[in-house]
Amino acid sequence: MQKSLLKQINTPKELRLLNQKDLTQLAKELREFIINIVATKEGHLGASLGVVELTIALHYVFNTPTDQLIWDVGHQAYGHKILTGRRDNFHTNRQLGGISGFPKREESIYDTFGVGHSSTSISAALGMAIASQLKGDNKHHIAVIGDASIASGMAFEGLNHAGVTNANLLVILNDNAIGIDPSVGALKMYLTNVKKGTQKQDNIFEALNFDYSGPIDGHNLDEVIKELERLKTVKGPKFLHIITTKGKGLKQAEADQVKYHAPGKFDAKTGDLPIKSTQIQAPKYQDVFGHTIVELAKLNKNIVGITPAMPTGSSLKYMMEQIPDRAFDVGIAEQHAVTLAAGMATQGLIPFCNIYSTFLQRAYDQIIHDVAIQKLPVIFCLDRAGLVGEDGATHHGVFDLSYLRCIPNLIIFAPKNEIELRNIMYTAQLGLKQPIAIRYPRGRGVTIDWKQPFSKIEIGKGVTLNKGNKLAVLSIGTMAQNVSEAIKDLNVSHYDMRFVKPLDENLLHTIFKTYGTVVTVEDHTIKGGFGSAILEFTSENGYKNTIKTLGIPDDFVEQGTLAELQESVGLDVESLKSIFSELS
Amino acid sequence: MQKSLLKQINTPKELRLLNQKDLTQLAKELREFIINIVATKEGHLGASLGVVELTIALHYVFNTPTDQLIWDVGHQAYGHKILTGRRDNFHTNRQLGGISGFPKREESIYDTFGVGHSSTSISAALGMAIASQLKGDNKHHIAVIGDASIASGMAFEGLNHAGVTNANLLVILNDNAIGIDPSVGALKMYLTNVKKGTQKQDNIFEALNFDYSGPIDGHNLDEVIKELERLKTVKGPKFLHIITTKGKGLKQAEADQVKYHAPGKFDAKTGDLPIKSTQIQAPKYQDVFGHTIVELAKLNKNIVGITPAMPTGSSLKYMMEQIPDRAFDVGIAEQHAVTLAAGMATQGLIPFCNIYSTFLQRAYDQIIHDVAIQKLPVIFCLDRAGLVGEDGATHHGVFDLSYLRCIPNLIIFAPKNEIELRNIMYTAQLGLKQPIAIRYPRGRGVTIDWKQPFSKIEIGKGVTLNKGNKLAVLSIGTMAQNVSEAIKDLNVSHYDMRFVKPLDENLLHTIFKTYGTVVTVEDHTIKGGFGSAILEFTSENGYKNTIKTLGIPDDFVEQGTLAELQESVGLDVESLKSIFSELS
Repeated sequence: MQKSLLKQINTPKELRLLNQKDLTQLAKELREFIINIVATKEGHLGASLGVVELTIALHYVFNTPTDQLIWDVGHQAYGHKILTGRRDNFHTNRQLGGISGFPKREESIYDTFGVGHSSTSISAALGMAIASQLKGDNKHHIAVIGDASIASGMAFEGLNHAGVTNANLLVILNDNAIGIDPSVGALKMYLTNVKKGTQKQDNIFEALNFDYSGPIDGHNLDEVIKELERLKTVKGPKFLHIITTKGKGLKQAEADQVKYHAPGKFDAKTGDLPIKSTQIQAPKYQDVFGHTIVELAKLNKNIVGITPAMPTGSSLKYMMEQIPDRAFDVGIAEQHAVTLAAGMATQGLIPFCNIYSTFLQRAYDQIIHDVAIQKLPVIFCLDRAGLVGEDGATHHGVFDLSYLRCIPNLIIFAPKNEIELRNIMYTAQLGLKQPIAIRYPRGRGVTIDWKQPFSKIEIGKGVTLNKGNKLAVLSIGTMAQNVSEAIKDLNVSHYDMRFVKPLDENLLHTIFKTYGTVVTVEDHTIKGGFGSAILEFTSENGYKNTIKTLGIPDDFVEQGTLAELQESVGLDVESLKSIFSELS
Repeated sequence: MQKSLLKQINTPKELRLLNQKDLTQLAKELREFIINIVATKEGHLGASLGVVELTIALHYVFNTPTDQLIWDVGHQAYGHKILTGRRDNFHTNRQLGGISGFPKREESIYDTFGVGHSSTSISAALGMAIASQLKGDNKHHIAVIGDASIASGMAFEGLNHAGVTNANLLVILNDNAIGIDPSVGALKMYLTNVKKGTQKQDNIFEALNFDYSGPIDGHNLDEVIKELERLKTVKGPKFLHIITTKGKGLKQAEADQVKYHAPGKFDAKTGDLPIKSTQIQAPKYQDVFGHTIVELAKLNKNIVGITPAMPTGSSLKYMMEQIPDRAFDVGIAEQHAVTLAAGMATQGLIPFCNIYSTFLQRAYDQIIHDVAIQKLPVIFCLDRAGLVGEDGATHHGVFDLSYLRCIPNLIIFAPKNEIELRNIMYTAQLGLKQPIAIRYPRGRGVTIDWKQPFSKIEIGKGVTLNKGNKLAVLSIGTMAQNVSEAIKDLNVSHYDMRFVKPLDENLLHTIFKTYGTVVTVEDHTIKGGFGSAILEFTSENGYKNTIKTLGIPDDFVEQGTLAELQESVGLDVESLKSIFSELS
C-alpha cells in the first residue's frame, strides 16, 4: 500500500518538496479526503473538487504565503485549507468554534483575504499588488475567480483598474460554466465560444490590457504547472483562463452540479444522497416564496420574478420552469437586478426582486436612487434575513432593517410564518403605490398546512398574539415563534408588529398607555433596527415607559447552527423566557 | 434676421416637422440658449453642450415619448429638457421649486427614468425593453451613457444581461474621454485605441453580443441621424459608439473641460469666468482634506489616497499632482475603491478612501464584508455628507449615519469645523486598529486660520461647547455651528458629541443625570441616525429624560440652496432657536 502523501503535508513548504510526478497521487488523496469529510460533516463540495489540481499547482509553483493567493467567494478553498495546516481540523468546518467555511484572515496566514460574497478577489489582490510595488518587493498576487463571479460588476471594475497598472497580478479564471446555478449572460456565452473555438478574434481580456493565456485544462497538473511557471516570469497584469469541471472526481457531483454544490450528507463511497424522508414537514420559506409567486403570476400577468444567480436557493426556479418568459436569472448582478426591476416597474410590471438580505447590501444605492426616490412599486423579497447558521459572519442578514429603515417611501414587513409570507406577497401585487421589502429567514417554517386561500394584509397593521398584563413584548418576523414559546407560562402580552415601517402607531399608543415595560425582540442587530424604531416612536410621542430592546449585539456573529447562534446572542426560547420572567 | 426655430418647438413632435437641413441652425440656437442661461443661473454646462446634436437627432429620429430615452447620470440632459416643453422654465433649473438639474419622472413624460448617480441607464432601459416585449409593443429603448459611466460595474452588469436577450435596446456610448475629470482605466484605453484605429481586432461590445457600430462623429447631425435611422431597423441589442467633445461650441469649455463641467457664473459672450475674489475666505472642506492628506502623506509613507472619479471634487487632485504613485483615481468604481483599500490595508498601507456620502451607498456591502468584518483600518472620508444643495434628492448625503451605525467595528466621526477634520485625519493615520468613517459637508467651513499644528483626538470623546442649565443640546458635525448661533441668547448647554460611534458614554451619563430635557441635532435623516443612537443609550441605561431628536424628516429632500433647504427641514438657526426657546 502506498504511503499517504497528504498526511506528510502540514504546510505548502512540504508540498513543494514533492516530485512533480507525485502530485497526481496527492490530488487523488486530497479529493478523497474532501469527499470523506464533507460526506458526513456537510459543506460546499463541488467547487472544491473542481480546483484540486489548481490548488496543488498554485502552492507548488508559488511561494505561499509570501506570494499571496486570494480565492474569490471562497467555498472552493477546502483543498487550500487542508494543504495549509488545517487538515486535522477540517472536520470542524463550518461548526461553532470550528474553522470557517471560507478563507478568513484570523484563521491562517495563508488566508490573505476574507471572502464569502463573490467578486472581491481582483480588487483585493490588486490592492496587495500595488502595496508590494510601493514597498519594492517582488511578491506574486493571484486572484482565483469563477466564471459566474467574474461577470459581476465589481470584478469588471477591478479588471478595468488593473489593466492600466503594472502591478504583479495574475487573475485566474476558473471556468466551469456554473456558479451555484449555471452561469448566465453574454460573458458566459463569450467564454463558451472561446472554449468551443467559435469565438471570432475578439478577446475581452486582451482588450482590457491583460496578458491573456488559455484556455487550458485545469485538471491537467503538468499543463497548469508549466503555465504558472511561465506566468511567474511575465510582468504586469496577467490573465489565465482554465477549464475545470465542478464536482470533478465524484460521478454524481459532476452529473448534478447544482445539487452537489452543497449536498448535505451523502454516501462517501457511492456518492449517493440519502433517500428523502417521506415525513410531512413544514415547508422552507424559500419554497413558499417559489410556489406562491407561480400561483400569483398565473393570476396576474404583470408579475415578473428576478433573481441574481439564486434560482435554486431562492426557489424562483419554479417560476423559471413554468413561466420562463417572466422569470429572470440575471447572474451575480444585484445592482442590475434592482434597477432592472425599477425599469420594469415604470412600465406597469410588478417585479418581485428576490435577493438574500446579505447580498442586497450590494444594491443599496439602487434601492434608494432608482426605486425609492421614484416611489416605484418594486417588491423586494429578502431571503435569508436574520441569522443564517453555518455560513457565518459574511452571510448573516442582520443589517437590513437598519439600512432600509432610513429610506423614505419604503414599506418594511416581516412575516411571522408561511401564511403571512403568502399573504403579504398577495397584498403587494394588488397595486401598491410604493416599494416594499419583505424579509424572511432561511429554512423551514412551522406550518404544515400553509397553502391557505390568500387574504389581504392591511399595510401598517400589527396584531395581538397574546394578552397578559405584566409586560408587553413586541416582536418582528419569525421571532414571534420564540416569543410565543417563551411566554407560555407567563402573564405577558405579545404583539407581532409585522411592519417595521410604517409602524402601527394606533396599536403602539394603546400598548404604551397600558404597560409600564415594553420589550422588543428582533433577529437583527440592535443598532438602528426594529427596537430603535420603537424608541423613536416613544421619543416623538413623549412616552417614558421602560423599554428593553433585544436583538443581536454590535458584533459580527460567527458560524454555528441556528440554535447555537440564537443561544449565543440570547434570542433562544430559554434566554427570552428568563428575561421576560425577570421583567414581569 | 432668421426666425428662431427653438422658440417654435414646444414638444419633439414640432421638432420632427422640421427639415433635416434646418437642424444645424436649431443646434446653434439650442447651444446658445444653454450657454446664455447657465452663464447666469449656473449648472452643468459642458456635458449638455457636448450632446446638442445627439439630443436633436434622437428626438428627430425616434418617436419620443413613446420610444423611451434614458440619459445616464443626466447632467447632459439640458437640451433634452429644453426641447421637451421646459424651455421657458429652464431658467429655474436647480432652484428651489424649479425644474431639476437631472431628468425626473414626475417632471415630464419625456423623462422616463430619474437619474443623478451614474451607470443606471442600461439596466433601466433593459427593464423597459423587456416590459415592451412582454406586452408585445414595438417601442424603442435608448440608453445614452458616457465613457466614464460605462466603466462602472453596474453598467457592465446591464450589458452582460442585455447581450443574451433580444430586447429592443440601443445603447449609445457618448465617448468624450471625460466624466467630471478625465476618464481612466483599461476600457478608456481600449476606447482611445478604437478611435485612433490602433485597437487590434478585439471588440468588447461585439464579444458581449451587441450589434456594434461606430465610432462616428457625434457632432455631425446627418451622420448621426442616418445611423440612428439604420439602427431603428436592427433587432435585438445594439451599440452605437459616437465621439463628441465635452463643452462643444464654447472655446473655453472645450479647452478646460474640468472647470467648465459646472463652471458657476461666466460671461456668456466671451466664455470667461469671473476674476476670483482676493478676499480671504474660510476654505472648502474639500481643500482641507486635499491639502491635509498631502501634508500627512509626506510624513507617513504608508498613506495612500483613493477616489472613485472625483479627484477635483474631493481635492485628492493635490496629492495626485504631488505624490502620484500613492494617489489613485479608480474611475466610477466605488465598490472596487473600497475593496482595493481593504487589500492595501492588509499590507500595512493606510488608505484614505474618499467617497461622497451619497456614492458610498454604492459600496455598502464592501464596507461591511471587506473592511469591517476584517477590522481593517481603512479611513473613509465621506465628502458632501448632509444636505448638498442644488443637486437635490439624488445627491444629499443624509443616510450615512443610519447605514453605517449598524456596522460592528466601525468608528464614525463628524468634525464640527476644518481644524477637527485635520485633526481626525491626523489621528486616524497614527495607527488605528479598525476602520473609521469621517463625514463632512460640501462647501466652505468657518475658519480662516485653519492650518494649525496637528493635535490628536481621543477616540470616543465628545466636547462641551457651552454650559447653561435649562436644556442640553447634543449636536454632531457642522450642525454645531447652527446650534452655537441659535443658543447665543439662551441658557442652554451645548455638547458636540463628535463620535456617533463609539458614543462618549461618560459624557452622556453626566448629561442625562443633569438635564431633564435633551435635544439632538443632526444634518441627517432622523430614522436611525445620531438621535436614535442617543435613544438607544438611554434605553440601555434606563434614563427617562425628555428627548427631542431634530434632523431631516422621513422624506426625500429636493433641490435648493443649503440655506433654503435647512430652513425647509427646520435645521436653520431661527428654527433651532425657536425650538430651544420653547423647550428651555
